[in-house]
Amino acid sequence: MSRSIDLAVIPGDGIGPEVVAEGLKVLTAVLPQDVKLETTEYDFGARRYHATGETLTDADLEQLKRHDAILLGAIGDPSVPSGVLERGFLLKLRFAFDHHVNLRPSKLLPGVATPLAGDPKIDFIVVREGTEGPYTGNGGTIRKGTEHEVATEVSVNTAYGVERVVRDAFARAQARPRKKLTLVHKNNVLAFAGHLWTDVFHRVAQEYPEVTTEYIHVDAATIYLVTQPERFDVIVTDNLFGDIITDLAAAVSGGIGIAASGNINPSRAYPSMFEPVHGSAPDIAGQGKADPTATVLSVALLLRHLGYEAEAGRIEDAVSADLAERATLPARSTSEIGDALRVRVAAG
Amino acid sequence: MSRSIDLAVIPGDGIGPEVVAEGLKVLTAVLPQDVKLETTEYDFGARRYHATGETLTDADLEQLKRHDAILLGAIGDPSVPSGVLERGFLLKLRFAFDHHVNLRPSKLLPGVATPLAGDPKIDFIVVREGTEGPYTGNGGTIRKGTEHEVATEVSVNTAYGVERVVRDAFARAQARPRKKLTLVHKNNVLAFAGHLWTDVFHRVAQEYPEVTTEYIHVDAATIYLVTQPERFDVIVTDNLFGDIITDLAAAVSGGIGIAASGNINPSRAYPSMFEPVHGSAPDIAGQGKADPTATVLSVALLLRHLGYEAEAGRIEDAVSADLAERATLPARSTSEIGDALRVRVAAG
Ligand SMILES: CC(C)[C@H](C(=O)O)[C@@H](O)C(=O)O
Ligand SMILES: CC(C)[C@H](C(=O)O)[C@@H](O)C(=O)O
Repeated sequence: MSRSIDLAVIPGDGIGPEVVAEGLKVLTAVLPQDVKLETTEYDFGARRYHATGETLTDADLEQLKRHDAILLGAIGDPSVPSGVLERGFLLKLRFAFDHHVNLRPSKLLPGVATPLAGDPKIDFIVVREGTEGPYTGNGGTIRKGTEHEVATEVSVNTAYGVERVVRDAFARAQARPRKKLTLVHKNNVLAFAGHLWTDVFHRVAQEYPEVTTEYIHVDAATIYLVTQPERFDVIVTDNLFGDIITDLAAAVSGGIGIAASGNINPSRAYPSMFEPVHGSAPDIAGQGKADPTATVLSVALLLRHLGYEAEAGRIEDAVSADLAERATLPARSTSEIGDALRVRVAAG
Repeated sequence: MSRSIDLAVIPGDGIGPEVVAEGLKVLTAVLPQDVKLETTEYDFGARRYHATGETLTDADLEQLKRHDAILLGAIGDPSVPSGVLERGFLLKLRFAFDHHVNLRPSKLLPGVATPLAGDPKIDFIVVREGTEGPYTGNGGTIRKGTEHEVATEVSVNTAYGVERVVRDAFARAQARPRKKLTLVHKNNVLAFAGHLWTDVFHRVAQEYPEVTTEYIHVDAATIYLVTQPERFDVIVTDNLFGDIITDLAAAVSGGIGIAASGNINPSRAYPSMFEPVHGSAPDIAGQGKADPTATVLSVALLLRHLGYEAEAGRIEDAVSADLAERATLPARSTSEIGDALRVRVAAG
């Protein structure tokens, strides 16, 4: 394990800078003395787009590539047309760095409010494919703006792309106590892609005899996420289905205010990127109202990815302890929550 | 309004025949004496597929076409490979009869259990496009079964197809007290189709100045469906997004056991088809355990479509009254629930 971390930091728009500051605070506090942390800040997002028209250039990618990992706050602002920063920055980065494992854990921690009734047990991870499916930008428009317009979107799925993410998910399922993996797709309708996913899934399953497998259609999966979330341990799914079900999963397990994610390239050929699932929330930006917990948990995923398992665990324990007490505390500011977590990981 | 109804009845597989029998029982009871109801039963589904290899032939379509409407129980059985009956029957029928308005109401009625905490107010309808999007079967596979397989799915969206369903949704929103219409899509990523949907939506909105409009990404929509379902009045969306969010909507508003749907061709050029959202549930088939409520509510949608508004309302009132009492009653069989509803509509 390298005893230095060279981190690219992208605070971004809205509440991004505020939550990233707390993430770095906790990261600094948790790292052993001998680990040298170096951070380089990058000014991507709406400000840069308005100033230069650029979202993410080849030169930017060259620079980012040199780092060990990337921590991102949030990108997006109402002043920028919908889609420009999403496709020009977020998706461009995922594709350029081949972030094919989009990892999104969902765990309902004690003390955390859920919109679900009763006392649901929620503890699963979603492995969302990150570089294929309907996200490739394939498709087009003819006769735009006329009554004869036709617009297509092409979902592209390759054996190569599906197999590597399915393998990653099986390995993660194998490493968890319950060892259960659910494939979520819509193979009764999307038969071409569905056949490929199902076929690869069953083939790789042969190599993991200890892992229990099941298949669920994406529409039914949304039902189970609210009626039987305890059913899930590890889910593997396509890029778009993963986008949809992870927002729902975040909602039922405490909200996107605490949902973390990693855009991972397991080969380490490129740096992986870690970010909260929430957006830039411009309505509360700059007011110290944002919850930095999702960013702090993303830092834990980042540390685990770089091999700092114990430190990742300490952050997660600190967050659990903090969340368990929250309901009893008066409302705290972004930096007060960050400070509380910093103190806990330093003591832990 | 025609004073006769010539109905095609497709009991189908699993619990289909049981729930359809109750639907017809209630239909017969609610119709005024002078309305002549004629029913013709069709034996589609797994049995026929196994016997003949056929799912839905051109000759079948010719026969079905002559009816005023179609009532379907459920199609699907584990003995048939996934997708065969879905695509060969259900989707084939939707496409052949141009069922472009897939109507799915969600209303949480008093006495009905919801997986959501608190006391959520849920009363909205989803207008799901039914003949385009990723459901067209466009796409393909090359190098099948090899490590170089590539599978594509093409979402096809036309101005013609989008505009007609968006218009239908605006008209429905205009007719409801709240007059609010939400477009659900993913236009920040699926930019070709997203642009078409958004553009048409804004254009048609000009003609409905009284209707409040909003746009929500599909991932965020799943969050709101569990955290703020009262936000929605009418939702219009694409075929696949509609498939996903209506299962979730059914789950939060009492479960798919009571969710009804209509596959509607508003032009009446072809008969529309009405069916419960649930499937054939082979595990409980033939035991009198199935809840016929979703089918009975589908009969109400069918009657409303044919112009029998008062009768549709009477069925809905009967269902509301029955559901309000259910928690206090011992469990009832399929036909006991049907009998109770029959008695209520006859008295109503
Ligand atoms: C912002 C958007 C491009 C992105 C996605 O669709 O992947 C977001 O919803 C997410 O889930 O990270
Ligand atoms: C069975 C399947 C083809 C169908 C669909 O995907 O439309 C079902 O899920 C539905 O929602 O009616």
